[in-house]
Amino acid sequence: MVYADLVIHSAQMMATLRGFSEGPACGTDMSEIGIIEDGAVAIQDGKITAVGTTEEVRADGWIGPDTKLINASGKVVTPGFVDPHTHVLYAGSRENELSLKLKGVPYLEILKQGGGILSTVQSTKQASDEEIKAQTSRRLRTMLSMGTTTAEAKSGYGLMLDEELRALRLIHELDQEQAVDLVPTFMGAHAVPPGYNEERFTNYIVDEMLPQIAAEGLAEFCDVFCEPGVFSLESSERILLKAKDLNLKLKMHADELASAGGAELAAKLGVISADHLLQASDEGIAALARKGVIAVLLPATSFNLAKNSYARAREMVQAGVPLALATDSNPGSSPTESMPLVLTIACLYLRLTPEEALTAATINAAHAIDRADQVGSLEVGKQGDVLILDIPNLNYLPYHFGNNPVEMVIKRGKVAWSI
Amino acid sequence: MVYADLVIHSAQMMATLRGFSEGPACGTDMSEIGIIEDGAVAIQDGKITAVGTTEEVRADGWIGPDTKLINASGKVVTPGFVDPHTHVLYAGSRENELSLKLKGVPYLEILKQGGGILSTVQSTKQASDEEIKAQTSRRLRTMLSMGTTTAEAKSGYGLMLDEELRALRLIHELDQEQAVDLVPTFMGAHAVPPGYNEERFTNYIVDEMLPQIAAEGLAEFCDVFCEPGVFSLESSERILLKAKDLNLKLKMHADELASAGGAELAAKLGVISADHLLQASDEGIAALARKGVIAVLLPATSFNLAKNSYARAREMVQAGVPLALATDSNPGSSPTESMPLVLTIACLYLRLTPEEALTAATINAAHAIDRADQVGSLEVGKQGDVLILDIPNLNYLPYHFGNNPVEMVIKRGKVAWSI
Ligand SMILES: [Zn+2]
Ligand SMILES: [Zn+2]
Repeated sequence: MVYADLVIHSAQMMATLRGFSEGPACGTDMSEIGIIEDGAVAIQDGKITAVGTTEEVRADGWIGPDTKLINASGKVVTPGFVDPHTHVLYAGSRENELSLKLKGVPYLEILKQGGGILSTVQSTKQASDEEIKAQTSRRLRTMLSMGTTTAEAKSGYGLMLDEELRALRLIHELDQEQAVDLVPTFMGAHAVPPGYNEERFTNYIVDEMLPQIAAEGLAEFCDVFCEPGVFSLESSERILLKAKDLNLKLKMHADELASAGGAELAAKLGVISADHLLQASDEGIAALARKGVIAVLLPATSFNLAKNSYARAREMVQAGVPLALATDSNPGSSPTESMPLVLTIACLYLRLTPEEALTAATINAAHAIDRADQVGSLEVGKQGDVLILDIPNLNYLPYHFGNNPVEMVIKRGKVAWSI
Repeated sequence: MVYADLVIHSAQMMATLRGFSEGPACGTDMSEIGIIEDGAVAIQDGKITAVGTTEEVRADGWIGPDTKLINASGKVVTPGFVDPHTHVLYAGSRENELSLKLKGVPYLEILKQGGGILSTVQSTKQASDEEIKAQTSRRLRTMLSMGTTTAEAKSGYGLMLDEELRALRLIHELDQEQAVDLVPTFMGAHAVPPGYNEERFTNYIVDEMLPQIAAEGLAEFCDVFCEPGVFSLESSERILLKAKDLNLKLKMHADELASAGGAELAAKLGVISADHLLQASDEGIAALARKGVIAVLLPATSFNLAKNSYARAREMVQAGVPLALATDSNPGSSPTESMPLVLTIACLYLRLTPEEALTAATINAAHAIDRADQVGSLEVGKQGDVLILDIPNLNYLPYHFGNNPVEMVIKRGKVAWSI
């Protein structure tokens, strides 16, 4: 008989998120979080071998003489959070832009003064590999401490080929060197660098960058900042079609600032996720639902931009669009690593229920980065990525805010962080 | 020669908040945070004995053979945060009301269903002293970990005399038993309990509660929830005048939900602080400025109520009203303990600068609870309450959000919390 290495047992409430590994939850299914009372989960060799009540897991014989036991009584147990949209790899910070922003200086003016994305492009370029990794590791450690066990990580502060390749290589190294699993996305189409116009830079991405990025095998997804004045629908489509040809999976930053057909294009291309979507049209929302495109919503960015502009999450749920939640962690519009705060903002401002928000932060987020076969729920065969939350019930998770509700983070069956 | 017990030195940036111990900072003075580069602070017997550059403090001979040295290089050092408005003492929680609130059920309807303040009155009444203290200690520990070294704590979940006295007694015990200094406020006028109308309950407060509360010497301040439908201007004035007669200091919850002359009454009575003030009139703001009444703003409550309604902080600064910031920590409208998040929300939504926000969270907050002679700044003779923040500069404090920036909390010269 094989015994488990670790059994977490006696959870007051265990949310398994089971049943949605084949496709993301949408509509009323987003409330079906698979609660087990007095729950237990057994992990062996980094993978989940049993999920059920404490009695069931015990009766199945998973607890041997060397099995480590963790008592979660009075606690809530969930899958590790999956953060499916981050720009976490960079050097430098942009706190100096805060006062400009507070004075109402428009983003384009901040850009002119050398701020914005291009400023992070500069500070990242000037930093050594070690500096970038040290600064990013620290952010990943904060993410882990707040329950994120898997995160997407985009390039896009390099813009030119060598720097973009370096970014993707560093993401791979960091994936190996620390606990949070990283899923790499190539996002050369993050901004148009000085010396280029949109068309010439799009040509450069399509003709020179993408073939090389694909050849090196360092990126799994390709993403585009599709927005009038940045990358148009036409440029975005060219880039994404080329990426698809090269066997990259697709994502899109869509309809963040203007309603310009981004969601419609996302649906037309059948991307895996369309992200932001603050200004998505009714037709765009309907199209996302028809094609099963996951809407990755980023309410911490809305909070931080302080314009009281949020995605129409309730209409999306009603329309049947599967929702995921992410931090958008980046040095400009969302300098945060906290999925717990994202869940609070999602409930208060997107009007998600705690159950919907948890689904969006786990199994649906896993689908948004094509990892639902491995993470996002507590089911047999998945990675042993488990959170013990020091809260009495799920409503408490968004309710009590500004602190860290995470008591312990288990990654692949090992304690990766605890208070 | 007497040496210091502790010297914190080499701070990249030390914000002393010096120069405002006699009266709170207002107007442009709120930006004068007394920065010292390469700063150091010496503490002996729990009190600050020297403040200056590392070289100055060293040259003054404060460092002896047994002096504990803490190197704060690369870090920001500030006074401990003072949280001047909390309802932190209670048992139970109200996460069950979150879904009602999200569905748009009005507060009065939630009250009818047994929710709201009266529900916390019930759960607190049913709890033992030990339960209340255990639950409150946990919240105070979270506060401490996020940098709060002194907090106001109101009664007001008792309403009847015996329960209010118990609350104040428990606040005193907790003040003794844990690290955060507590300043007790009697707030019997928090809600009108069943079986009373406003007039009868006001009579009860004035004739029976206040004399007994004052006689027991357990409260330093008296506060009233002055709001149409709760305690009118007339009732509030009666209660506060009686409290003043009994040598209690005065505070007011004013103009939170309706503009009804609360700020004007606060100025007329010369209370130490008027709190909330979302709906304060222009005249009310001018009156507060004339009388030097401190406006205690509670932006985490606005955030949590999600109505995009914030106090007019910039107009208050312009008018010369001294501002303080607080969590309003309570189980209904603000279930948080985080002063760092309050600072972020204050910058983003009240449009305070990082300097103004820090002033509001330290020396001005100390004035709001009449403790500016002891805490709120790093000046010789004050308590050795010091934070080491793991951030490179002050702008970073509101900029990077959702995490805990505090690396170490020194309370009366001793390490009370560290990561
Ligand atoms: Zn993004
Ligand atoms: Zn209050």
